[in-house]
Amino acid sequence: MTFTYDDVYINFYSTVGGPYEKDGPLGKNLDKVYTNLYAGEKTWEQAEVKMLSDSIDVVLKKSRKDSSDIDLLISGDLLNQVTASSYSALKFNIPFFGIYGACSSSVEGIILMSSLIDGKKVKNGIVSVSSHNMSSEKQFRNPTEYGAPKPKTATFTSTGGASVLLSNQKGKIRVESSTIGKVVDMDQTDPFNMGGAMACSAGDTIYKHLKDMKRSINDYDLILTGDLGRYGKEILIDYMKEEYKIELGKNYDDSGTMLYDLNKQEEVLAGASGPLCIAMVSYSDILPKLEKGVFKRVLLVATGALFSPTFVYQHKPIYSISHAVSLEVNK
Amino acid sequence: MTFTYDDVYINFYSTVGGPYEKDGPLGKNLDKVYTNLYAGEKTWEQAEVKMLSDSIDVVLKKSRKDSSDIDLLISGDLLNQVTASSYSALKFNIPFFGIYGACSSSVEGIILMSSLIDGKKVKNGIVSVSSHNMSSEKQFRNPTEYGAPKPKTATFTSTGGASVLLSNQKGKIRVESSTIGKVVDMDQTDPFNMGGAMACSAGDTIYKHLKDMKRSINDYDLILTGDLGRYGKEILIDYMKEEYKIELGKNYDDSGTMLYDLNKQEEVLAGASGPLCIAMVSYSDILPKLEKGVFKRVLLVATGALFSPTFVYQHKPIYSISHAVSLEVNK
Repeated sequence: MTFTYDDVYINFYSTVGGPYEKDGPLGKNLDKVYTNLYAGEKTWEQAEVKMLSDSIDVVLKKSRKDSSDIDLLISGDLLNQVTASSYSALKFNIPFFGIYGACSSSVEGIILMSSLIDGKKVKNGIVSVSSHNMSSEKQFRNPTEYGAPKPKTATFTSTGGASVLLSNQKGKIRVESSTIGKVVDMDQTDPFNMGGAMACSAGDTIYKHLKDMKRSINDYDLILTGDLGRYGKEILIDYMKEEYKIELGKNYDDSGTMLYDLNKQEEVLAGASGPLCIAMVSYSDILPKLEKGVFKRVLLVATGALFSPTFVYQHKPIYSISHAVSLEVNK
Repeated sequence: MTFTYDDVYINFYSTVGGPYEKDGPLGKNLDKVYTNLYAGEKTWEQAEVKMLSDSIDVVLKKSRKDSSDIDLLISGDLLNQVTASSYSALKFNIPFFGIYGACSSSVEGIILMSSLIDGKKVKNGIVSVSSHNMSSEKQFRNPTEYGAPKPKTATFTSTGGASVLLSNQKGKIRVESSTIGKVVDMDQTDPFNMGGAMACSAGDTIYKHLKDMKRSINDYDLILTGDLGRYGKEILIDYMKEEYKIELGKNYDDSGTMLYDLNKQEEVLAGASGPLCIAMVSYSDILPKLEKGVFKRVLLVATGALFSPTFVYQHKPIYSISHAVSLEVNK
C-alpha cells in the first residue's frame, strides 16, 4: 500500500541518547545525552520514559510550540504494554495513540501522522519512539548479570528517545510518499539474528515502493534501512540482487551500522537496533543533510522483527515487517 | 481531538468467541464459537491467534471479498508484542499496522482507519482486536492454577476475536465522528480494579466529544462504554454528574456488564474486559440494532487501562485512556 502526500512537512526533530550513543559517530549531533543508563531514574523502564519525554520536550522547545498546540501524539516502543510511550503521553496531555511495529514503529507513526495531516484531520502532530538497551535485554533476553555470551549476529538495542514534529506548515523537508509493508515469515527462529529475520522484509517493501512510485533505486540519494546491522545488510544486498535484480550500491546504508563505531565499540556486535535506531540516525544525520541540500530525496525503511519470547518458546518463527517513507527537499 | 467523516461506512463485521461468551446473553449472535479455550491449538496464545484470524476470515466471507481486496489491516491485542495481531496478519498478506491501546484498541483502530478512508488513502480496511482470558491471566496476573482469590471489582478478560470492515462504499451504518482521548492518571494502583482506573477517562472523552460536536447526551440513543464493569459503570455515572453535571440515564450502558450474565456467570465477577469486550458487544448487538433502525445514533467509548505489571511492581499508578466513535444510521 503506497500513499502520496501533498502538504506534509517535517520541520522539527529531536534526539536524546545514552552513553553508547554519545560515544558513537553521531554523538555530537544529539540534542541531549545521558552518561548513565539510569538517566537519573531508579529503573531502566523509568529511564526510558524520561528519555522519550525529554525528546518531546526538546522538539516542542525547538518549534517554540506548547503541548496544547499539538493535535496528536503517536508513539511506540518495545516495552510491554508500550508503556514508555503512554507514560510519557500523560505528561504532555496531548491526545494519544499507541502503536506497535517493533523497530518499524517510527515509520509506522510517520505514515499514520502524515496521512492524518494530508487528510486535513491534524495540523501539528508529534511522532515519538524510544528504546533502552537494558530494559530490552531484561524483557527479551537474559538478565545481563548472567553474562551470557552472544553470537556476532546479535545486535545492541540503542538507548534513548527521538521525536519528530510533522505539520502542514511548509518547510524544507517534505514527506512525499510512503509504503506500508506486510508481515513476512523467513522461518527464522534465532532471537540473536534479527537482521536475518528482517532483511527480506526490507527488500520486499523497497521493491513494492519503487514499483508503486514507478522509480528506480537511483531516484534516491540514500536508501536507509534500520536496523539490519552488519550481516542483515549483506543479506539484503544479496536478496535484492537475486530476487529483484536490483543493485544496492553506494546510495544504500543501514542505520544499525551507523549509530555506533562497529570497530571501536565492540560490545555492539553486529550493530545498533531498537525502534530508536533508524529514528536517531535519521534525525541526527539524514534530516540535517536534507535541510542542507546534501541529499535531495531519501527513503527511510524501518525494519521490525515481531519478536515475542513467548512465541519463540512455543517454537514459532520470528516474523518481520518493514515500512518505508520517502522524504525530499521541498522545491 | 475530534474528527468528522463524510463517507466512511461499516458494512460487515464478525465475532468469534469462546465458551464463556457462548454461554452469555449475546452467545447466539456470535458468528463462530469454540467450546474449548484452546480452540484446537496447543497454547492459549495460539488459540488467540486462531480466533483473531477466524474473525478476519468471517468478515471477508460475509463481504465476499478476498484479502487482496483489502488495502490495510489495523489490529491490536493484549499479548506482549501485539503478537495475536501480527501473527494473524501473516496469513492474510495484507499491509499491516499494529496498534496498542489496551482495551481501547478497537476504537483506536476504527478512528485511524476511518481517517484513512475519509482522506481517500484507503478504500477497504479491516480493523481487528482479540483477547483471551487465559493468555491475559498468565501474562498480567497469576497462573490460574494458583487459585488466588480475587476481589469483586476484578473483571474477566473476554476470549475471542472481532473484526470490522470499513470502506467508502455507502451502507447502512456511517462512521460519523470520533474523539481521541488523552492519557489520564487516577492514581489507581490496584490491578484488580480496572473499572476504577478507567471510569474518569471515559467521562472526560464523552464530555470532550459532546462539547466538540455541540451535542447533549440525549443526541445519542446509546452511549456504550467498554469495559468498565459493574462498579466502574457506577463510578462513571457519579463522575459525570459531579464533574460535568451530565446525567447518564437509560441511554447509557457498559459492554462489560452485557457480554456475560453477571448473576449466573459468577466467575466473571464485575464483568467482562479485554479489547474484545466492547468490539464483541458492539458487533453482535449494537451494529445489528443500528441496521434494523432500533438505534439511530450511538457512541462507542472504548476504555483502556494502560496496565503494565512491571510498572505496578515499580509502584507506578495504572494510567488509562478512552477513545470514542459515533456511528449513525445513514440517511
